[in-house]
Amino acid sequence: MTEQDECEKESLLYLDDLQVGQTFVTGSHLMREEDIKAFAAQFDPQPFHLDAEKAKTTLFRGLAASGWHTAAVTMRLQVESGPRLAGGMIGSSGHLTWPRPTRPGDVLQVKMEVTEIAATKPERGLVTFRTETKNQAGEVVQIALFNLVVMRRSTGTG
Amino acid sequence: MTEQDECEKESLLYLDDLQVGQTFVTGSHLMREEDIKAFAAQFDPQPFHLDAEKAKTTLFRGLAASGWHTAAVTMRLQVESGPRLAGGMIGSSGHLTWPRPTRPGDVLQVKMEVTEIAATKPERGLVTFRTETKNQAGEVVQIALFNLVVMRRSTGTG
Repeated sequence: MTEQDECEKESLLYLDDLQVGQTFVTGSHLMREEDIKAFAAQFDPQPFHLDAEKAKTTLFRGLAASGWHTAAVTMRLQVESGPRLAGGMIGSSGHLTWPRPTRPGDVLQVKMEVTEIAATKPERGLVTFRTETKNQAGEVVQIALFNLVVMRRSTGTG
Repeated sequence: MTEQDECEKESLLYLDDLQVGQTFVTGSHLMREEDIKAFAAQFDPQPFHLDAEKAKTTLFRGLAASGWHTAAVTMRLQVESGPRLAGGMIGSSGHLTWPRPTRPGDVLQVKMEVTEIAATKPERGLVTFRTETKNQAGEVVQIALFNLVVMRRSTGTG
């Protein structure tokens, strides 16, 4: 193992390193109008995600990102600048709420908090994170309560 | 209103048209390896979603789609060939589970069932759908229990 590998391994978080109440804040991500439309064209082709003019007469009263786009960007922020979990960031289940739409020009940032830790197997467990995605005005656009599979620190000699 | 508009309006479903137990089955979608990697590169850049070789030594034991990719494709199938809800298909909150990974080559199809209907406002309500996304072997890769905002049929003269 090189010195760099050693350092990378050192900085990884295992189940044993996490505590209820611990928080993590990610970097931020700009939601550009063209990205909102591109995501919608591929995965959620509805007028209120595709066409600013048509969106005005819908429930959203203007162009809004697909909730799945907000969820996907939230994931990206967590992977890029959230906790560096050993084994990766692997969700198994959870609850999602979109209290308000994400709009073109919104800058999203994610705050994660550990709310529950359960060692379910000798080598791993489930950690519940409450994840709030906010826009630049501090308004919450997504709340996620998700269970992540997290590795336990090996108790062997390795 | 043209004859075509009239027909389109006729075929839309309102809250009043839905019943608990009603089911809808969508078309299907092939999960190509290049699409799995492209989605992951943009939204969930982790080795088990990006690199088949590296994925072998992870919890997934092989390349797997991001759960958010499975969720996004599920949305697309619902929008394209699910129930044609008046006002569009707008989720507000819900619960997601990924019981097993989506693999390259999987052909996904979605079955939706109405499990609850609540008229929350004079003009609209919430309909809970239980949505199962299955692969070509009939194995469930995602279960979603989501609340959708659905318009009520106008009681006026219009």
